[in-house]
Amino acid sequence: MSDNSEFRPEARSPHGFQDRRARDLAGERAILEAVSAVYERYGFEHLDTPAFEYADALGKFLPDSDRPNEGVFALQDSDEQWMALRYDLTAPLARFAAQNWETLPKPFRRYAFGTVWRNEKPGPGRFREFIQCDADTVGSDRPEADAEIVAMAAEGLRAAGISKGSAVLKINSRKLLNGLLAQARIDDPAQRLSVLRAADKLDRLGQQGVRDLLGKGRLDESGAFTPGAMIPAGAIDSVLAFLAAGGGDRASVLAALSPVVGGSEEGNQGLEDLARIDAALKGMGVSEADARFDPAVVRGLEYYTGAVYEAELIAPGDARVSLGSVGGGGRYDDLVARFTGTPVPATGFSFGVSRLAAAMAQFDWLKAGLATARGPVVVIVFDQALMGEYFAVAQELRDAGIAAEVYLGPSGMKAQMKYADRRRSPAAVIIGGDEAANGTATIKDLDLGRELASAVTDNAAWREGRPGQQTVARAELVAAVRKIVDGGAA
Amino acid sequence: MSDNSEFRPEARSPHGFQDRRARDLAGERAILEAVSAVYERYGFEHLDTPAFEYADALGKFLPDSDRPNEGVFALQDSDEQWMALRYDLTAPLARFAAQNWETLPKPFRRYAFGTVWRNEKPGPGRFREFIQCDADTVGSDRPEADAEIVAMAAEGLRAAGISKGSAVLKINSRKLLNGLLAQARIDDPAQRLSVLRAADKLDRLGQQGVRDLLGKGRLDESGAFTPGAMIPAGAIDSVLAFLAAGGGDRASVLAALSPVVGGSEEGNQGLEDLARIDAALKGMGVSEADARFDPAVVRGLEYYTGAVYEAELIAPGDARVSLGSVGGGGRYDDLVARFTGTPVPATGFSFGVSRLAAAMAQFDWLKAGLATARGPVVVIVFDQALMGEYFAVAQELRDAGIAAEVYLGPSGMKAQMKYADRRRSPAAVIIGGDEAANGTATIKDLDLGRELASAVTDNAAWREGRPGQQTVARAELVAAVRKIVDGGAA
Repeated sequence: MSDNSEFRPEARSPHGFQDRRARDLAGERAILEAVSAVYERYGFEHLDTPAFEYADALGKFLPDSDRPNEGVFALQDSDEQWMALRYDLTAPLARFAAQNWETLPKPFRRYAFGTVWRNEKPGPGRFREFIQCDADTVGSDRPEADAEIVAMAAEGLRAAGISKGSAVLKINSRKLLNGLLAQARIDDPAQRLSVLRAADKLDRLGQQGVRDLLGKGRLDESGAFTPGAMIPAGAIDSVLAFLAAGGGDRASVLAALSPVVGGSEEGNQGLEDLARIDAALKGMGVSEADARFDPAVVRGLEYYTGAVYEAELIAPGDARVSLGSVGGGGRYDDLVARFTGTPVPATGFSFGVSRLAAAMAQFDWLKAGLATARGPVVVIVFDQALMGEYFAVAQELRDAGIAAEVYLGPSGMKAQMKYADRRRSPAAVIIGGDEAANGTATIKDLDLGRELASAVTDNAAWREGRPGQQTVARAELVAAVRKIVDGGAA
Repeated sequence: MSDNSEFRPEARSPHGFQDRRARDLAGERAILEAVSAVYERYGFEHLDTPAFEYADALGKFLPDSDRPNEGVFALQDSDEQWMALRYDLTAPLARFAAQNWETLPKPFRRYAFGTVWRNEKPGPGRFREFIQCDADTVGSDRPEADAEIVAMAAEGLRAAGISKGSAVLKINSRKLLNGLLAQARIDDPAQRLSVLRAADKLDRLGQQGVRDLLGKGRLDESGAFTPGAMIPAGAIDSVLAFLAAGGGDRASVLAALSPVVGGSEEGNQGLEDLARIDAALKGMGVSEADARFDPAVVRGLEYYTGAVYEAELIAPGDARVSLGSVGGGGRYDDLVARFTGTPVPATGFSFGVSRLAAAMAQFDWLKAGLATARGPVVVIVFDQALMGEYFAVAQELRDAGIAAEVYLGPSGMKAQMKYADRRRSPAAVIIGGDEAANGTATIKDLDLGRELASAVTDNAAWREGRPGQQTVARAELVAAVRKIVDGGAA
């Protein structure tokens, strides 16, 4: 490619980007396939938008900014316009919906999956490129649209392989807290935002920490001081009562919230929205265990305007141990308006596919997927004159649905067994002159014999009897290999 | 998101990038799934590398170039290093293989699929972002590795849905032409490249055009002159005889080529390589119709060093009409050496997924995939009091594997029918007060009744008897809908 034969670039990937091998990818693919199928059953249409958007369309950046690459990967096109790689799948959806609104079926239900990029400082486990999988309904203000998104998320987690009881959707509405604050006559937007931020820290700081942040402020252990929201003592009590109102079934949470937020118009709206979400969830058979109302769910993004939801994984065997969020979403009304000036109600959910895949690998929720990370059956090249027979054997195995290959490196039994070991192959097939003459084949069960493989030093040693090695009639080869492969995958 | 409420960006995607809807994506996904499964059966491991590589690692560009963005999308990272979006999947594989060579199973067999980007001038049907799907074997110099790649490509096309006889793999070896030129004592690299380029134009210019380009040059109809390779008349005859030696079965092509190129060492090597490829293809059961030897296959890229292959689609019903290339590849030895200095033999194939998907849609090779582009069954909202029942109906349908949704826009029968029409829904379910009281449901077959849907003006007209409309017992609902959906997909 390059004519500069003196220059040898260092082989390395850019900071914050990772190569992923089969075992890392199997979980992710299984999730995307399972979740896509659920989205399609709910009538959501697959949409793919480009990796690039114009920077002004992405919305985070002012178009006249000199170098709009804070947080995103941006570059100037040949016509000087700034383009940036998408940082999520929602901003491109808003652009697409605004661009095609006249001709789209409305409400527009779309799902999408793909890579998003963040130009942030990488760290351990923090990458600048990852996969999201989203579903959004654009153009419906019905709370039932939120209920459907929640039901899909719950069903998607189940379809991906999460065992029953190991995931919960937690639902809240921004209108409830807004109503509570309206009742307490706290109207300043900055003050409201401080309340929201304080509430978001309940998990981490506990009741007293949040109480401090709602009031005069909080001094942490390092001596750093965070200024408080400075709301009145009565309002602080109401907010804390509100945050603590979760726990029971959906109807009882609504009953508990009613006296706290029911006095304001927005609070009443929030209660009615949640009641309608509850009814729709019941219609769709979503259990109380799968979807709960939890007033302590905040979610950071300021743009949410109604229901918000969060998918949380729970440690198998201990319902008290949260494994953290693997997705979330909510209702937002302003994204399309950025383009058209007309607010369009929308609601959606995004799976954090990489986090979910990591959790699924950790808890063995993905047997089928991980089986594909096993290597193929290796047909050993023992005698160059038999290459045609080796290829025929490999093809027979493949035609029976068993991954198989003829070893194509330089010959030598040791190299071939080392190869099969690195590939985590379940079995090797050996056909030498004797087998060819007798109409037989020797099969080595590598899981059984793996611990001995590294001790093999020459062909003669190899041909001695070894555990897991059997000689079968050539016609029985596929059946015998299948027995080993099926046993190993279970 | 933005605080600048005055500014309204225009909703448009960047030049040369496209949004793709479900019907565009169904074919592509079916191809990727089918081809991936074939690759895995052949023992190839899934690998995913980042979208970005350092510009020097991509190899097209000198690292000291001032602005290395010719042909690629490049930007400077925060540490001033130039990164670029990958323009194919081979250059990142070379970087990965060089970086991990010590610990990889060797030969390393990997497949990959994903987006690649080219910063080129867009045009009709020419995009700056598209999907590739590759398989490569790195670290084997055996011609059998090439045979395997060809067998996988043929099987992949079949698995993706191409009907038998509608695709052919055409195989050649660079060594043959090189041998022929060596015999004619044409050693100048520039002259050899001119011969290669002339040979590549046989399809377009015919025998005489290539003869001119091999000799003194060619004046085209517009009056433009292309200088010729200036090789001797005898060598021109040999090259033309070589290019015309295709046509019969693989053994007879080899027999025809033997006198033309067999006198040189490299020509003999090429003949032996192709003979071994033929034997391995036979072992794998790849028919003469699926894989041919064709000396006229050149493929542009200079870096190929041995076998080259091209997948060509053929018009159904007329074997003489080529629909063009949908993929290709070959053997290359220098990509890993760019990093390590040590040549590593490699061979691979890349599917042009978008072109293949377009051809498959055109020839209806994708019934299963296109069925997913149908909309969901729409449960009509006729009575707000029955919302719970509507969600239960939709869930019953989904649990039976039928895509279904409750309409969630503003009510009104006309809007709902228009929606179902835009979604290309097969059926609508209507449950009003009467049906609810009687324990029945009304089902509308929308394919049958679609032409009348636009004439519906009010609810009363709708409720009159119409073609394709039936009322069934509520317990029979799912079975009746399935009958319509299955009929429509067939």
